[in-house]
Amino acid sequence: MSTSNLYQGVSIPEAQADSTEINYFIESAYPVDIAAFIESLDLGLGLTHLLKLDVEKRAQVFSYLDLETQVQFANALSHEALAEIASKMASDNRVDLYNQLEPSEQQQLLEDLDREQREDVKRLSVYAEKTAGALMSSEYVTLAGNLTAKQAIDQLRHEAPKKTAIYRSYIIDAELRLLGVVRLHELILASDDTPISKIMDQNPVKMSIDDAQEDVANTINRYDLTTIPIVDANNRLVGIVTHDDAADAMQQETTEDFHKAGTVEPLTQSVMKASMGLLYKKRVVWLSLLIFGNLFSGAGLAFFEETILAYVSLVFFLPLLIDSSGNAGSQSATLMVRAMATGDVTMKDWKKLISRELVIALALGLTMALLVFPVGVMRGGYEIAMVIGLTMVFVVMVGSLVGLSLPFLLSKLKLDPATASGPLVTTIADAVGVVVYFSIATSLLDL
Amino acid sequence: MSTSNLYQGVSIPEAQADSTEINYFIESAYPVDIAAFIESLDLGLGLTHLLKLDVEKRAQVFSYLDLETQVQFANALSHEALAEIASKMASDNRVDLYNQLEPSEQQQLLEDLDREQREDVKRLSVYAEKTAGALMSSEYVTLAGNLTAKQAIDQLRHEAPKKTAIYRSYIIDAELRLLGVVRLHELILASDDTPISKIMDQNPVKMSIDDAQEDVANTINRYDLTTIPIVDANNRLVGIVTHDDAADAMQQETTEDFHKAGTVEPLTQSVMKASMGLLYKKRVVWLSLLIFGNLFSGAGLAFFEETILAYVSLVFFLPLLIDSSGNAGSQSATLMVRAMATGDVTMKDWKKLISRELVIALALGLTMALLVFPVGVMRGGYEIAMVIGLTMVFVVMVGSLVGLSLPFLLSKLKLDPATASGPLVTTIADAVGVVVYFSIATSLLDL
Repeated sequence: MSTSNLYQGVSIPEAQADSTEINYFIESAYPVDIAAFIESLDLGLGLTHLLKLDVEKRAQVFSYLDLETQVQFANALSHEALAEIASKMASDNRVDLYNQLEPSEQQQLLEDLDREQREDVKRLSVYAEKTAGALMSSEYVTLAGNLTAKQAIDQLRHEAPKKTAIYRSYIIDAELRLLGVVRLHELILASDDTPISKIMDQNPVKMSIDDAQEDVANTINRYDLTTIPIVDANNRLVGIVTHDDAADAMQQETTEDFHKAGTVEPLTQSVMKASMGLLYKKRVVWLSLLIFGNLFSGAGLAFFEETILAYVSLVFFLPLLIDSSGNAGSQSATLMVRAMATGDVTMKDWKKLISRELVIALALGLTMALLVFPVGVMRGGYEIAMVIGLTMVFVVMVGSLVGLSLPFLLSKLKLDPATASGPLVTTIADAVGVVVYFSIATSLLDL
Repeated sequence: MSTSNLYQGVSIPEAQADSTEINYFIESAYPVDIAAFIESLDLGLGLTHLLKLDVEKRAQVFSYLDLETQVQFANALSHEALAEIASKMASDNRVDLYNQLEPSEQQQLLEDLDREQREDVKRLSVYAEKTAGALMSSEYVTLAGNLTAKQAIDQLRHEAPKKTAIYRSYIIDAELRLLGVVRLHELILASDDTPISKIMDQNPVKMSIDDAQEDVANTINRYDLTTIPIVDANNRLVGIVTHDDAADAMQQETTEDFHKAGTVEPLTQSVMKASMGLLYKKRVVWLSLLIFGNLFSGAGLAFFEETILAYVSLVFFLPLLIDSSGNAGSQSATLMVRAMATGDVTMKDWKKLISRELVIALALGLTMALLVFPVGVMRGGYEIAMVIGLTMVFVVMVGSLVGLSLPFLLSKLKLDPATASGPLVTTIADAVGVVVYFSIATSLLDL
């Protein structure tokens, strides 16, 4: 949990540290750590340090900055200076930046880039956010199928400086269709004159441009890949996704799921950097929506005013009962949301899961009823205890079934199942719980 | 979210599918998918299919089975058959299996393995779970510092078949101390007689044996690595962790955090495979603990019986107020827990965050007070509305501060901050909320 050891011993200096310390840090630290340092400074100072770096490292460091920060710097830099950095960035980072710029700045940047990079940016910028297309890069090596291992290695030698990913090369035909993948590992092992068509994997794992980035990441994890080829509808190779970009995408998705589970609207920035206004915005919407959900519980209670006045001790157990229902519901919802995110559970599993949940929830309800019964007897007498016990069984089951089903319902409605958060489930379960509780009371206590 | 495209078009056959379909699948599918198929069968049938595979593929498929399933198979197999598989497994998977076996079986397996593998298992089996040591493998290439690029590549050619990770080789001295890392990329580019000491990275990112697996995974992500060297206290190279194993570890950690956030005790198996009994166990403990938390709310209410009887309409707003407090708390807790897991926030940030939270929570509380005020007037008159509004501001702030602080408190107590779940925060916030609500009521409604 502590980041201390993430920084490989080199601790990031304070903004007001003396220049020798800062210079030492900037020379010895890794680009990502330099980026973290620059982000801790105000724009002007950060820019000065960035421009002191040689252009290669400058582009690396720049790529590690938050997109928000990159845009601020882009606006502060001359268009030549920006183009110089952009031309050295990896294609996927370059297009991410491009997509954040104003149309006029985009136009300027395109003009400043050389033809090849200009085409590349145009090509990559069209893909929808959070798809394989948006995640993929163009730094990979393609080989013709008729090469020998020796020829392939020579071509790699030639292209390697430009290309970041040379450990898996892609064999394509004249129409750019993907024929196979050959690992540098095998090229090194093969005798010089082995045709690569003999050693390539002819059935490589691949994904399509419009697959969700979550699925791309899950696939890379499932098949333990370093890079995955992305193809279009005609099996033409259009790019690759590397494991590290997939991991970043996955972490982003997971954080979103976490936030949704806590009814916070997804936050792209770090909590530390997010402004108070932003955090307020991300939280107020759901809190307000849930208020209206809770008004139903209130209405339910109002309806049972008589019962409450006759047996006020019923109220003492209200938080206990509605919370228990909500808690059981949160548990089921959590299990489903996470299992759906990892691809562990899919729509078709609902039937099987709901029947199991009925049994589990019944067992949980009975256990909890037994636990509260004595308390009920103490505080309200035997009759009240009966009401509470019965209600407990019932509301725990209702809560659990709501919690289990809501994620399925949401994804059936093409919504994110992660929205089935504890608080949402709790609010629904509460409203039901109140009605159940006082209905049982009213009938059992013959009012 | 749907797994369909994880299986690369080859859909996993039903257990009762005809043998031609199954055979076709087993020949064409990837090991991980074959493993998924075998797990869907009962033990005996699964074993038959496993043993039909040639030994190399058998070991690969076996490694992808759940550890629980691996152990069942291990018990069903003859010790020779098990040893044959184990000897072909990657060192990290082999030791994971070894650690799950009964002492007698462990002894037998050690005897059946060749000396080198026996020593390797003994060496790797001592590291504590969830540490870098437990995650690392021994399949990597070490080079002497005095080699040339050509000599290094020849050595790789020689060792590559045994070693899984050859893309980064580790340069060590006579005492096995890590001097640097050289990427195959650079070896390919270098002229034959370049000394590798010239092209190696002399300051590679590394971790220590006892670092937490979470930190190893975060470091691999931060520095975009494919493998990371693990060293002991004397900087001796003892193993490497690969990005794919780190990703699996990370996913496991994340799932645990999710489950804790929903007060479910961490579940190592898939929800689909977990027995109902197990799921009951994982859920009942927290649900029962929270009951006792809720009894405080009940006691609070009992204490204010007079007030309730005098102004029963106060009860109508009880769920609304305590839920709002709990919801605001869940939000803060979620933001903190996730930020701590990603290393975004550390202990030292508490001060800064708590002061910001005060402002944000006040703003949220005021907003919600304004929303409920009119409802209060409608249902209970102006005075009641005042009470409700005031209470809302107060409880939202209390809930938020509890939610924000609890994760810090827990990790200060060396507990997992993820235990600061919505339900736990809600229960605490409820108890406080009830007391605040009726205290304000009692004083304002001059009772």
